[in-house]
Parts: sequence; structure tokens; C-alpha cells
Amino acid sequence: MLEPLARIGRDPATGGYVRDAWSAADMELREWFAGEAGRRGLDLREDRNGNLWAWWGSPSRERPGVVTGSHLDSVRQGGAYDGPLGVVSAFAALDLLRGRGTEPSVPVGVACFTDEEGARFGVPCMGSRLLTGALEPGRALALTDDAGDTLADVVAEQGREPHALGRDDETLAMIGTFVELHVEQGRALVHEGRPVGVGQAIWPHGRWRFDFRGRADHAGTTRLADRDDPMVPFARMVLAARTAAAERGVVATVGKVRVSPGNANAIPGLVSAWLDARGADEAAVRDLVAELARAEGDVVAGGPGAGGRVEVREESWTPVVDFDVPLRERLARVAGGDTPAPILPTGAGHDAGILATAGVPSAMLFVRNPTGVSHSPHEHAEQADCEAGVVALADVLEDLCR
Amino acid sequence: MLEPLARIGRDPATGGYVRDAWSAADMELREWFAGEAGRRGLDLREDRNGNLWAWWGSPSRERPGVVTGSHLDSVRQGGAYDGPLGVVSAFAALDLLRGRGTEPSVPVGVACFTDEEGARFGVPCMGSRLLTGALEPGRALALTDDAGDTLADVVAEQGREPHALGRDDETLAMIGTFVELHVEQGRALVHEGRPVGVGQAIWPHGRWRFDFRGRADHAGTTRLADRDDPMVPFARMVLAARTAAAERGVVATVGKVRVSPGNANAIPGLVSAWLDARGADEAAVRDLVAELARAEGDVVAGGPGAGGRVEVREESWTPVVDFDVPLRERLARVAGGDTPAPILPTGAGHDAGILATAGVPSAMLFVRNPTGVSHSPHEHAEQADCEAGVVALADVLEDLCR
Repeated sequence: MLEPLARIGRDPATGGYVRDAWSAADMELREWFAGEAGRRGLDLREDRNGNLWAWWGSPSRERPGVVTGSHLDSVRQGGAYDGPLGVVSAFAALDLLRGRGTEPSVPVGVACFTDEEGARFGVPCMGSRLLTGALEPGRALALTDDAGDTLADVVAEQGREPHALGRDDETLAMIGTFVELHVEQGRALVHEGRPVGVGQAIWPHGRWRFDFRGRADHAGTTRLADRDDPMVPFARMVLAARTAAAERGVVATVGKVRVSPGNANAIPGLVSAWLDARGADEAAVRDLVAELARAEGDVVAGGPGAGGRVEVREESWTPVVDFDVPLRERLARVAGGDTPAPILPTGAGHDAGILATAGVPSAMLFVRNPTGVSHSPHEHAEQADCEAGVVALADVLEDLCR
Repeated sequence: MLEPLARIGRDPATGGYVRDAWSAADMELREWFAGEAGRRGLDLREDRNGNLWAWWGSPSRERPGVVTGSHLDSVRQGGAYDGPLGVVSAFAALDLLRGRGTEPSVPVGVACFTDEEGARFGVPCMGSRLLTGALEPGRALALTDDAGDTLADVVAEQGREPHALGRDDETLAMIGTFVELHVEQGRALVHEGRPVGVGQAIWPHGRWRFDFRGRADHAGTTRLADRDDPMVPFARMVLAARTAAAERGVVATVGKVRVSPGNANAIPGLVSAWLDARGADEAAVRDLVAELARAEGDVVAGGPGAGGRVEVREESWTPVVDFDVPLRERLARVAGGDTPAPILPTGAGHDAGILATAGVPSAMLFVRNPTGVSHSPHEHAEQADCEAGVVALADVLEDLCR
């Protein structure tokens, strides 16, 4: 099913995908989306935040639509399914509805959100956060990528208007209900022996930047006693995070590190590390971050810490999202056939969670992942399960737009 | 004294220098060298390995010269003195000799070695190692920079012939004696209360690449127990290196780290870290590296380790260099005035060490560094001390070319 996208942004050396927002690969993916909309006679719109919408029928404030979709960007060296499966399945489900002769009573939309992964600018779900006002546009525009370009530069270069970014009530009002289909990132469906599940909740999760500052110096001539080497407290933090997460029953990960200046023969002056922490219990996650910051002599702050050995800044925080209960139960009945589909929590953030938080009735369908691996080239779903996902999605849409 | 070079490769944000070998900044520095040679009527030569030579008089196998100089490239975000002070002082000392009416009995040369720091391709003293045959040219040409370009690509792009690289006996035969002046990287001269010292020895030192392999996966949905996160053993290694170095009276530094894929929301698949280790005792340094490798389940090897959790590869190793004893004592007498200059060991590698190992009588002069800081924008030497260095160097050259 993902064959038409298979070569876009693929690193031939690893088989992983690199599809940063607004990169050449992303622009090609957006072109593909426009083509799919066009050949089905759907009405293509791009909103002020770069999210794409393909409409079957004309939504209005009075007659908002049932929308499905996901995103096409990727984490760096990610897999083929995270995001694209939801968009490709949306188009396929719409084809199925038309094949069945369904005449929806409300418009049906396919959505593609911009920059869900945050691989380029560090803030995940950028498109849906801007759309719903969860992210302040001034802050977004000033974010920089690895090349030092701001989001403002990057969207302007792609011919978009940076100052148009921000909360977009007009677009939001068109979404009556949102359903996102996604490959499962875990093995709950394997244990259940079911191809499709329904989202129950998204764990509270956040991302914190730890800046450990020291003093750059020569690696050969500086005595150990004279060193102020930030690599050492950084390493302590990595190990402490693991222990503290295990103690609290949450997860914590350091997946991105930047060492300045990064010379093999010099003590670094600065080590920046990004901590991702999530769990069912919001207080436990927050407590973990506070403990790590305290251990190295600073406190967690919205802004930079003052005078401490480490500055900890919260880059994003998403409280727990409980998906609409009647909606998720309806999905479980419709998508499950004889036995309701299992309802599962997840530790992964999604645009559906951002919309739910903004008050849009939202739900998720998960497709079984045999290994549970995600954010990796090894991410996978069987063809038969993907097809079962499309049928379930079509059934759900048909039910919702009756 | 360094004013003419002050703006080349300077990062205005930090005040640090970025002068990678064969970069635009390096090419500008090389042009500056050519200009200095030209306006003094010196004979400019570039050898097959990109090292520059400015000759006063014509050296031959039968009448080799007295050579002084250093390098112009920098570690990333380095200071102004490490390298350039030796080249600028060489030209200034030559001017002083001419001003004194000295008529040298042998040719006098000013040298600028290519890529001393190894900031771009990871191997320090590239120019002198290639010249003396200490580095195999095939291995050098295949080294890659951060952009993935090989040294072969890079030198070809600058109009040099990659296949000409390698041991160059003809050029080596022109060097009768080599004296390198360098800013001190430590505070021994501060403690001695002397502006200029003489090199005794260079500690044995090496660089090892540790590749920790794990399994990339989703940061939110992968249980701690299911993780194979290479950041954890990497962090253990950083802390163990510090402890093991302190126990053995040597120094160990991790100043460069590469995390793949480097997503904040994904467990990494690979963490590569470069360990720099040095000390007066070669066995202690080697033992430290072996212990760190063993702790994470592999053994140090020339090639990649087989099947272990970490692969450790030696990227460079320089045995102890003891500078020529009569030569260093002669320098100490001549450079010291009434009281011989102090003779000091150093933990830093230098081209003078590579030449000494290759059998060229070599020596070093150090200029006092008030803070001892090096490989940092804060590296400094007082103007008066730099001038004392030039006078000492001129005295030494005059003595050597009598």
C-alpha cells in the first residue's frame, strides 16, 4: 500500500526515511497528496499552517465534516508506516466508501498534518498545535533547524507566508470528528491476537532540553582536577534518568545530544541533551524531570535556569489525552466486527491528541505491528493487517457520516 | 602579532576559530602565508602533502636547513594562538635575524604544516604524518569529513593531486633541524615565572572510537525492559573513563559524540564516542582503554571488534616522544638568557613530535599562557611574552645556523 511513497526520502544506506518538514522530500510527499486528491476529484486546501485537506463535499461551520488522516513527515531514519499508513489508508477507505455507493450525509475529509514528528525544529505536532493555538506562532517562527535557519525562513522559502501561521478557527470549525489511523507502536495487538485496535488515551509526555555548561579546554594538557567537563554530569544524568524512570514506572529517553565544539581532542564547553519522558501518571513524569535537574544543581524552569550548573528548559508538554469515551466505544464496536476491538493506551503523541485537547471529538485506530518497533527502519505491518485497517476505517467513516 | 589573521575563520557568535583543513578559511590562511613569503623574497614551496615551506636560501640534501614554524588550522571553536603563533613568530624571528645582519651558514625555512588538529578528518598531524610516512596515504585519502566527503575529494577540489600524497623523502631531506614555537597548553611557565620554556617530551597519546550499538525504537512506547539503548553503556563509559584515568594518573576525555539517528523522540541505534587518552606512562594509557572496552563487553582491536556490544577502534596512537637531549639543552641555554629556560613535558601532540619520531632533530619552544587554557576561544598569551618568544626563537635560529 505504501509502494508509491517507498522511494521518497529513503536513505539507501540504511533503508530508513528522512522526511523533515518542508524539505525536498516533504514537498514531494505534499505533491503526491495533491495528486491523490486531484485524481479523486476532491477539493484540495492548504490551511495557513501548511496542513493539507482533501474534501469530498463542502464543509461549513454549519455542516462540519468527518475527517481522517495523519502525517507524511518522518523522524530521521524512521520507518515507512508511522504517518503515511494513516494518509494512504484514508484515501483507500474513501475509495471503499465510494465503491460501496455510500452517500455521506456530511463532507468527508482527508488530512495531512505538517511536521508531526518535530524532527527538524524540535517541536512535535507543529501543524496541529499551530492550528489549535496550542503553540504560539511567534515562538514557532523563531525555532531553528540544524542549519540555523528559522521556521520563518524555511516556510518563506517554500513560498508560504510566515505571518499567516497561528490559530485558525475557520479551518478548525470544518472538523466535526477526527479519526487517525496509525501503525501500533508496541505489541498490545499481537498479545490480543487482533489486527486493529482503538485508542483509549495518550500518556502525558514532554520534552526537556538540558544544557550542561563547562569550560572548553585542551584534552591533553588539562589536569583532571582542573577540569570543568560537562560530559561528566551529562553522563550522570543519562544513568539517573534510567534509574528514576524504572522507580516511577515511566519511560525516559535521551535520543539527541549536541556537543560543542565537538573536537575529539578538547574538553567540551557545552553538552546539550534532550530528555523525552512519558508515563500514565503525569505527576511521576514531572517528578522525574525535577529530580534530574535538582541532582545537577538547578531547577526546572519555563525559561533558562539562573546560575546553576545545568539549565533545563521545557520544550513541549502534552497533558494526558483521554479520547472521547462514547466515540471510542462506537469505533470499537464498528471496527471490531463480532467482538469489539481492544481499546489501548499509548505512549506516543499524535495530532489526534492535539485536536482532542482542543475540543474536537477525536479517536484513533491502531494497526498491529508484529515487532512493536517504531521510529526505526525495522517498523513494519503485514499487508493483510493494513487492509483490515482500511476496512475498519471505512466502516467507521460510514458509521460516522450516516 | 596575530592581528593580520584575526578575522579569518572567526565565529562572531563565540569569538572562537573554525579553520578546518582545506576549508575556505584555511585557503585564505595559506594565501596569507604565501604573501608573507613573497614580500620577504623567500622561495615558496608546497610539498606533495600540502605542507608549505618558505625558504631563505636554497636547501639541498647536502646542505639541509634549519626550519621553524607550526600550523595555521584550528580545532573547532579554538583560540587564536595554537598554531598561528608559531608561524607568525617564525616570520618575525627571520626579520629579526635579517635586522641583526645575520648571515646564516645554512638555509633557514619557515614551515606551515597542513591539518595539525585533525578537526575535519579525525587524524591529527596529518601533514607531518603523511610527509614522514607515519600515515599510509590510502588510509588518509579514504577518511571522510562530516559532509561525507573524502580527503581525496577535498584535496582534488582544491586543485591538488590526491595520488601524490605520501612519504616525501626529498622534502624531509631538506630539514636539518626543526624548531616549533607554540603557546603553552598548561601553566608550568606561570609557576616558573618565565615567559619561555623548552619542550622535554610529548606524552604518549591516542584516540579511540567507541561504537555502542543498540536498537532504534520509539521513545514513548518501548518499555524500559524491552530497550536496547546504546546511550546507557556510553554514559557508563564516560564515567568509567574519568575514574580509570584518575586511578592511573593519566587523562581521558570524550569531546566528540555522534548519536544516530539523533531524534529526541527515539531510542538511538548507535552512539559513537571518541576517547582521547594520554599520560606519561604508555602502559597506563593502554590499560585504561582496554579496561573501558572490556567493561562493555569487547576487546580493543585494530579492526572492528566481532560480535561485542561495543566496537573499539584505535584511530591514532603516538608513542612517547623524547626530544633530542643535546638539542633541547642547547635551546634552553640560548633561549634562557642568564638562567637556562625550564624544560617541560607536554600532553599535547605536535608536528615537531612527528618529525622527531621520524629521526629529524627537533625541539620546541613554549610561550607562557596565563590561564593555561587552550583549544578554546579563551586561549591567550600576553604581547610581551609573545615578543620574548620571537627573540628566543631568533636567538635559537642564529645559534643553530651559525
